[in-house]
Amino acid sequence: MSDNKVQIFDTTLRDGEQVPGCKLNTEQKLIIAERLDLLGVDVIEAGFPVSSPGDFNSVTEITKIIRNSTVCGLTRAVENDIKVAAEALKYAVRPRIHTGIGTSESHIKHKFNTTPEKIIERGVAAVKYAKSFVEDVEFYAEDAGRTDNEYLARVCEAMVAAGATVLNIPDTTGYCLPEEYGAKIKYLRENVKGIHNVTLSCHCHNDLGLATANSIAGVVNGARQIECTINGIGERAGNTALEEVVMILKQHPYLDLHTDINTKLLYNTSKMVSENMGMFVQPNKAIVGSNAFAHSSGIHQDGVIKNRETYEIIDPEEVGVTESAIVLTARSGRAALAYRAKKVGYELTKLQLDDVYKEFLNYADRKKEVVDQDIHKIMESFDIKP
Amino acid sequence: MSDNKVQIFDTTLRDGEQVPGCKLNTEQKLIIAERLDLLGVDVIEAGFPVSSPGDFNSVTEITKIIRNSTVCGLTRAVENDIKVAAEALKYAVRPRIHTGIGTSESHIKHKFNTTPEKIIERGVAAVKYAKSFVEDVEFYAEDAGRTDNEYLARVCEAMVAAGATVLNIPDTTGYCLPEEYGAKIKYLRENVKGIHNVTLSCHCHNDLGLATANSIAGVVNGARQIECTINGIGERAGNTALEEVVMILKQHPYLDLHTDINTKLLYNTSKMVSENMGMFVQPNKAIVGSNAFAHSSGIHQDGVIKNRETYEIIDPEEVGVTESAIVLTARSGRAALAYRAKKVGYELTKLQLDDVYKEFLNYADRKKEVVDQDIHKIMESFDIKP
Repeated sequence: MSDNKVQIFDTTLRDGEQVPGCKLNTEQKLIIAERLDLLGVDVIEAGFPVSSPGDFNSVTEITKIIRNSTVCGLTRAVENDIKVAAEALKYAVRPRIHTGIGTSESHIKHKFNTTPEKIIERGVAAVKYAKSFVEDVEFYAEDAGRTDNEYLARVCEAMVAAGATVLNIPDTTGYCLPEEYGAKIKYLRENVKGIHNVTLSCHCHNDLGLATANSIAGVVNGARQIECTINGIGERAGNTALEEVVMILKQHPYLDLHTDINTKLLYNTSKMVSENMGMFVQPNKAIVGSNAFAHSSGIHQDGVIKNRETYEIIDPEEVGVTESAIVLTARSGRAALAYRAKKVGYELTKLQLDDVYKEFLNYADRKKEVVDQDIHKIMESFDIKP
Repeated sequence: MSDNKVQIFDTTLRDGEQVPGCKLNTEQKLIIAERLDLLGVDVIEAGFPVSSPGDFNSVTEITKIIRNSTVCGLTRAVENDIKVAAEALKYAVRPRIHTGIGTSESHIKHKFNTTPEKIIERGVAAVKYAKSFVEDVEFYAEDAGRTDNEYLARVCEAMVAAGATVLNIPDTTGYCLPEEYGAKIKYLRENVKGIHNVTLSCHCHNDLGLATANSIAGVVNGARQIECTINGIGERAGNTALEEVVMILKQHPYLDLHTDINTKLLYNTSKMVSENMGMFVQPNKAIVGSNAFAHSSGIHQDGVIKNRETYEIIDPEEVGVTESAIVLTARSGRAALAYRAKKVGYELTKLQLDDVYKEFLNYADRKKEVVDQDIHKIMESFDIKP
C-alpha cells in the first residue's frame, strides 16, 4: 500500500445501523455490503456478532459474498465476544476482528469502575486472544477523544506490542475540535513505539458537526484509515460521512492523499442506503442531498450559466449526479429565465425578456417554483410563440 | 462589545431562503424574524430587497417589528440595489446594508469580465454610496475562499478606508479546508491596515461538509462574526448551521469565545424553521436532529444509564430537548431493557432478566423498535407481573 493511500473503513452496517428505527434485515445488509465492495471500500464492518443471533448471521452471510473488501466484526474486550466474532468471520477472505475498551477517565471510572492499568491489561488480553484467530486485529480506544494523550500513547504502545495491526482513535462523543484531534494523532505518531508498522484510524462522531473536519485533520496528521458511513448515519448525530471525506481528498490534490473509492457510485449508493434504512437525507446534505448541486438564486444561476466553475467546485457527474438543476424561483434572475425559456423553445429578445421577467416574478412570488408549464403560460400571455 | 463575543449573523431569511422549493411568504418571514430576535441573534439578514417586490416588502415589514437585532439587506455593488435596500430598511432601529462583489479570479474574469483594480473601484463606490444611507455597512468579497490572499488584503484595506464596518470573507463554493480558511483570516488580521477597527465575518458553505469547522477556524483566528442559518439550510449543501457553531463555542470554554444566543430555544427554532420552509432536518443532524440525543446500542445505553456524561457531551435540556430517548432495538443490551422495564413497572431479578432478554431479542430481530406494549407482552409470556 502506498504511503498516501487513505483506507476507507465503512461502518454503515455496524455503527450506522445502530440507529433508532433503522434496523436492516440480512437480505438488505447483503445488498448494501455488495454495493460497498463495488464502491471500493477497503473494510466493511459488517456487525457486532455477539449482540444478537440476527447480527451474527448477517456477518457470516456477508463474508460469503465479499471478495475484495476486508470484512470486520466488532467485539468488546471480552473473550466470548471475540470467539463469537471469529466464528462469524470464518468464511471471510480477509477477516478482521475489531476489539477494544474505553480509555477516558469517564469510561474507566463510571463504565468499568477500574484503573488505567487494568484497562491496558484487558486490552492486551483481548488483542492477543483475537490474534489467535486472525492476523488482522484492530484495537479501539473508546472515547480516545477525551483520553489524556500520554496515557493514550501508553495504551497504543501496549496494543502494538500485543499484535494489533490497526489502532482506532475514536472521538466517541464528537467533542474534539479539528486542531485538537489532529494534534492527538500527531502526538501518537511521535510518541508510540512501533507506530510506523501499524495503521492509525480516525473514527469521529458528528455531535457538534465536526466529524468530517476531524477525520481530515486526522489523515493530514498521519492517520491512514477513516471510519465512516454512507450519508453520515449512525447513533445520535451520526458518524463521519463517507462521501464527504472522499470528495475532500479528491478535491484537494495538494494534500497528496487519495482513496480507492469509485466516486461515480456515491449518489446511487447514498440513495440505496437511505431507502433501505428508511433514513432520509436532508436536501442540503453535502454531496448527496437533492439540492447539493441545485442553484436557485439569480446571481448564482447567472454565474453558473456563464461558467459552471463560478459556483460549483465539483462536477456533479463525478459523484454520479447527471444534471445540475437550475430551479426557477423568485430569487432567479433574467439569465436563468432566458436559459430555461430557451431550453423549452423560446428565443427571447432583450425587450421581450424585460416584459416577461416582470410577469415571471409575479408567478414566482405566488409559487414556490416556476415550472416549464408556467413558462408556456407566461409566454402565451405575451403572445410569444415557441 | 467585549473582545471575545462572537456576533451571530443569521441569514436564514436570505441565503437560507435561496433554496429550491422553499419560498416563504411575508407572514412566515415575520414569525421567523421575531423568533430569531428572541433567540438573541445579533444580525438578521432579512432579504435581498431589489430581487423582487415580495422580498422588498418582507424586509420592510421585518424592520417594523424587530427591536433588538440589527436588520440587514443584501445588495450587489450596484447603485440601484443599494438605494432600494436603504428604502426597504428605512424603519429599522439598527439598519445594515450588505454590499459586495466577486474577488476571485474566476469571478473577475468569467462573471464580471473586468480587472482586479476595477473590482476594487466598484466595491469602494458601493461602500461609499451605502454609507450615504446608513452607518453600518458590511462588505462581502464574494468567493474570497478562492481569492488570492494578497489581493484580498488590498480589497479589504480599500473597503475599510471607504467606511465598511464589517468585512465578510465568504467561502462561497465551500471549497476551503479549516486550516486554510483560518490562515486566510489570520493573514487579513495581520496585513490589512485598519482591520482592528472593523469586524471580520465568516460566511461558509457546506459543499464539502466543512462549513462549521471553517467558521470555527475563522473565529479562533480573529473573526468576530459568523454568518449562518438555522438547520444549515441554504443553496446547494447550505450554509453554516447556527446551532452547531453556537454549541461548539459553548462546549469549549477554553476557546474563551461566546455568543449571546439563548440555547434553550434552539430546538424549537429549528422545528419552526423546518416546518415553515418545508425543509426537513435529517434524524442524524447535529444538535437538532430527532436522533441527536437518542441512544440505541447496548454498550451506549448501558453507559448512559450509569452516567449520562459517558456518551453525552451536551445535556439535551441545554438546547431545549426535554428527554434523551432510550430506544430499544436489537442492539440494546440487558441494562437498557431492565431500565425501560422498570420505567413501565417491572422490577426484574437477574435470572428473570436473562430469560426475558432472549425473548426481547426475538422481538427486536423482527421489529425495528421494541415499544412499551411489546414489553408488557413479553412479561406476560413469562408470567411476570408489574
